Amino acid sequence: MFDLVSIVSLFASKAAPKTQVEFEYDGPSMKTEVPGPRSKELAKQLGEMQNVGAINFFCNYEESRGNYLVDVDGNRMLDVYTQISSIPIGYSHPSLMKVLSNPNNMSAFVNRPALGILPPENFPEKLAESLLSVSPSGMSRAQTMACGSCSNENAFKSMFIWYRNKERGHNNPSEEDIRSCMINQSPGCPNLSILSFMGGFHGRTMGCLATTHSKAIHKLDVPSFDWPIAPFPKLKYPLEEFTRENAQEEARCLEEVEDLIVQWRQKGRPVAGIIIEPIQAEGGDNHASPDFFRKLRNIAHKHGCAFHVDEVQTGCGATGKFWAHEHWGMEDPADIVSFSKKMLTGGFYHKDEFQADKPYRIFNTWMGDPSKNLLLAEVLNVIRRENLLEEVSRSGKALLQGLYQLQAQYPNLLSSARGVGTFCAVDIRDEATRNSILIKARDKGVLLGGCGDRSIRFRPALVFKEYHVHIFLNVFNDVLAEYN
Amino acid sequence: MFDLVSIVSLFASKAAPKTQVEFEYDGPSMKTEVPGPRSKELAKQLGEMQNVGAINFFCNYEESRGNYLVDVDGNRMLDVYTQISSIPIGYSHPSLMKVLSNPNNMSAFVNRPALGILPPENFPEKLAESLLSVSPSGMSRAQTMACGSCSNENAFKSMFIWYRNKERGHNNPSEEDIRSCMINQSPGCPNLSILSFMGGFHGRTMGCLATTHSKAIHKLDVPSFDWPIAPFPKLKYPLEEFTRENAQEEARCLEEVEDLIVQWRQKGRPVAGIIIEPIQAEGGDNHASPDFFRKLRNIAHKHGCAFHVDEVQTGCGATGKFWAHEHWGMEDPADIVSFSKKMLTGGFYHKDEFQADKPYRIFNTWMGDPSKNLLLAEVLNVIRRENLLEEVSRSGKALLQGLYQLQAQYPNLLSSARGVGTFCAVDIRDEATRNSILIKARDKGVLLGGCGDRSIRFRPALVFKEYHVHIFLNVFNDVLAEYN
Repeated sequence: MFDLVSIVSLFASKAAPKTQVEFEYDGPSMKTEVPGPRSKELAKQLGEMQNVGAINFFCNYEESRGNYLVDVDGNRMLDVYTQISSIPIGYSHPSLMKVLSNPNNMSAFVNRPALGILPPENFPEKLAESLLSVSPSGMSRAQTMACGSCSNENAFKSMFIWYRNKERGHNNPSEEDIRSCMINQSPGCPNLSILSFMGGFHGRTMGCLATTHSKAIHKLDVPSFDWPIAPFPKLKYPLEEFTRENAQEEARCLEEVEDLIVQWRQKGRPVAGIIIEPIQAEGGDNHASPDFFRKLRNIAHKHGCAFHVDEVQTGCGATGKFWAHEHWGMEDPADIVSFSKKMLTGGFYHKDEFQADKPYRIFNTWMGDPSKNLLLAEVLNVIRRENLLEEVSRSGKALLQGLYQLQAQYPNLLSSARGVGTFCAVDIRDEATRNSILIKARDKGVLLGGCGDRSIRFRPALVFKEYHVHIFLNVFNDVLAEYN
Repeated sequence: MFDLVSIVSLFASKAAPKTQVEFEYDGPSMKTEVPGPRSKELAKQLGEMQNVGAINFFCNYEESRGNYLVDVDGNRMLDVYTQISSIPIGYSHPSLMKVLSNPNNMSAFVNRPALGILPPENFPEKLAESLLSVSPSGMSRAQTMACGSCSNENAFKSMFIWYRNKERGHNNPSEEDIRSCMINQSPGCPNLSILSFMGGFHGRTMGCLATTHSKAIHKLDVPSFDWPIAPFPKLKYPLEEFTRENAQEEARCLEEVEDLIVQWRQKGRPVAGIIIEPIQAEGGDNHASPDFFRKLRNIAHKHGCAFHVDEVQTGCGATGKFWAHEHWGMEDPADIVSFSKKMLTGGFYHKDEFQADKPYRIFNTWMGDPSKNLLLAEVLNVIRRENLLEEVSRSGKALLQGLYQLQAQYPNLLSSARGVGTFCAVDIRDEATRNSILIKARDKGVLLGGCGDRSIRFRPALVFKEYHVHIFLNVFNDVLAEYN
C-alpha cells in the first residue's frame, strides 16, 4: 500500500504565479456525472443530424479558462488533453480575446480571401512575425493550409514534384506526361511511393491515410496505395536504462528501411519521400532516439528520398523545444516539416528546392486562413513573453517524476512512463483498465486522453504549470488507488 | 460595328435600393495599373517566403465593401470573381461585422474545439439553423469539414464504407479485413473506385485529385488511382436551340458511364460511387440538362453505386436556387451533396444510410470550425431577409441577356454565352485573347476569372444587383470594342 502522506506532500502545490491565478480557476469542480443531463440532452439533439458516437460531452467554452474546461452541466475539469492537443495557451486567453475585440482585426475574420491569388496587405508581415519567426533550421519558406491532413497531402505533392523533376533533370513535362496524367496513368501520374512507419499517424484523407498505420478503424474499407511500411522501433523505457537493447532495435528498423527503399525501387514504385513523427503520438507515444532520426535522415539523403517530419502533434512547444526535432540537434533536420493543431493553422515548411516550380501546383481556394495567422502571431508572443517553453520543461519534469513515482507505487497497473517536456505518456496494464481510468479521472475532474492500445497520453496546454501537475497527480493517485 | 448608344441605354442602371448604395461604393475607381507599386513591393516580400506565381495583387479588405474589392494601391474593382466564388454576400457585410463585434461570439473564434468529441453547447442549434435549414431534399444529416477537398475525401470514405458493408451484408469486418487494411492491402483496403467525368474538378488532395480532370497542371507528377473517367457531355449553346443534338450527346455519355461501370466491375475495381458537379466549373462551365442528371441518378441506382453531387462551387444560391441540383426537380437527387466556398465551412450532407456505422471512421481533430457556422447562420439570414435568391435570378437574366447581346455584336470574339442565375460564362475565341481580356477588364475596374481553356466565368456574390450587371456590361463592352 502506498503512503498517502508522502504522496500528498510530494505533490503539494507551490504558490502559483499571481496573474495566472487571477484569471484561472482554483481547481476542478464536479457537479454531476459526466456526461451530465444537459450533455445527454444535447447529444440526443445532435444525434438527429450527425454520428455522435465519439462525443464525450458538450462544453461551455465561454466559461472555460486557462487549463480548465467547463461543461454544459457546470462541471469544471483540469484539461490534460486539450482538444486532442490543439489548444496552445489555454482557453479564453486574455491576449487572444484582445485580438478578437480589436476592430482592426474584424475584416480578417469576415473577409476570408483566396490567399494564393489575393492575399491581404498584412499577409507577408503576419507570416514573417508568426510562422517564419519559428522556422525549423534550414527552412525559410512556409505554405499555410486549412488542416493537418491537407498539410501532409500538399507536402506529399511537393515531394513528388521535386522527385519527378529530379528524375527528368529539368521541369518540362513531356506530352505523354501531360496526356497520361489527365487519365490518372503513369508516367504523368507516376508510380512513386512514400515510406511510412507502422504505428504512425499522418491524417485521414486518402494520400495521408496510406501513410497512417495506428488503428484499423481509420483505414478499413478505404482504397489505398501499395507503399512501403517500415517497423518503428519498439523501445524499452526509461530509455537511458536500456540503451544497448534500444540501439539494437533501432538498428534493425533502419536496416529494414533501407531494404524497403531498395525493394520498392526494384518493383517500380520508388520511394520519393519518408514521413515520420518525432514521437508517434496517436499510435501510442512511441519514442526513438536522436541517433535514430539522424541516421534515418542520412538514409533518406543516401537514397535520394525527401525527408518529411510531421510535427502536427509534437510541434509548438509541448516537448519544451518549439519543434520536437530540435532535440535531435541537427542543422539540416528535414526537407519538409508539417504542422497544425496548436499552431491554429495547418501548413508546412520546406527547403527552397521543395517549392513547386510553377504556380497552381500547390494551390486551393483558401490555402489557410489569415484570421488563424493573426491568432498564431499572438500565441507566439505569449509563448515568448511568458517563457512558456521553460515552463513546459519545468512542468514536464514534475509530471514525469510524478509518473515514475506512481509507477513505482503501482507496478501492476502502470509501466513505461515516458516523455519529453509535458509530451508524456504511461502504459496501463490493459485496454479495459485504461479506458476505465480515463472515465474515473474525468469524474474526479481531470480530462485525459488515450493513445495506442493501452496508453494514456498527456497533452496539456503550454500554460500547464507545476501546480497543475500536482493537482493532476493527486487526482490520478486517487484513481489508481481504487485499483489496488 | 456596334451601336454604342443602344448598348449604353440597354445597360443603363435602374435606381439602386437605398440601403445597398449607402453601404457600397458608386462604382469602380482605378488609380494605378494592377498590380500597382505597393502590390509589387509586397509580392517581392512574400516571394521570399512562398511561391507567388499565382498572386494577382494584394488587397485592402478593410476598405472592401459589398461587390467592390479594394487593392493596396487604392484601386477599387467591381468583383465578379469573388475569391474563386467564395464570398457569399459581399465584403464586410454589416451583418457579419455584427457577428464579430458581439462579445457573446468571441469564445467561438478563440476556443476552437475538437468538434467530434467536445462540441460547444450551441452546436446542435447552430447546425439546425444554418446547414440543416438548407438541407437538400431527402437529407437530414450533415458533417462539417475544414475545406472542400476534405469534404469530398470524407464523402468518398463514407461511400466506400457504405459499399463494403452492403457487399458484406453486415458491418463486422473480418480478421483479414483488419489485418490487411493496416498494410494498405485488400480486402481491408478494397479495390473500389469512384467514377468521375473528364473536365470535372473535385479538389486536390490525393483521393479528390483522382477524380479531378480539368487541367494537367493540377495532376502532373502525383500518383493516382486507376478509376474510371467518363466523358461529360459537350453541349451546344444556347441549350434550347440544340435540344436534339444535345440529347444525343448526353445519351452517348450515359451509355459510356454504364459501360465503364461494367468494365471496372469486371476488372475487380467496382464503382462504389459516382461524383459529378451540376455545372462543371473549373473545367470550363460545362452544362448538362436536368434530364441527363436524372438518368445518371437512375444509372447509379441501377448499378448500386452511390451518387455524390459536388456543389462546392455551384451551391449557396449562385444559380438562383440554393442548390444547383434543385433545377433537376427531383425528390431524391443524390446520396451525398458536398459543399464549401460560399458556405464558409466545408462539409457534406448525406442520406441516413451513408452515416458511418461506427465512431472515429469519419473523424479528424477539428471537423470544421464552429466560428464558420456562426457566420454561415448569419449569411443564410441575410439571404432570406434580402430575398437574395430572387435577386440572383433577376441579375442573372440581365447578365445572360447582356452576354447574348454582346455575343451578337462580337461574333468573332464571343460564343456560347450560357448560365443559370448569375452562374454564367462565355467563351472567347482563344486562350490568349481570353487572358488579355481579363487583364484589360481589370485595368478598367472589373475583376473576372477564367475557366477551362478559353472561357470567362462570372461568379459574383449574391448581392450583385441588376445595376452591377449594367456596370459590368458597359466595361466589358468597352474592352471588347478594343478587339474589333
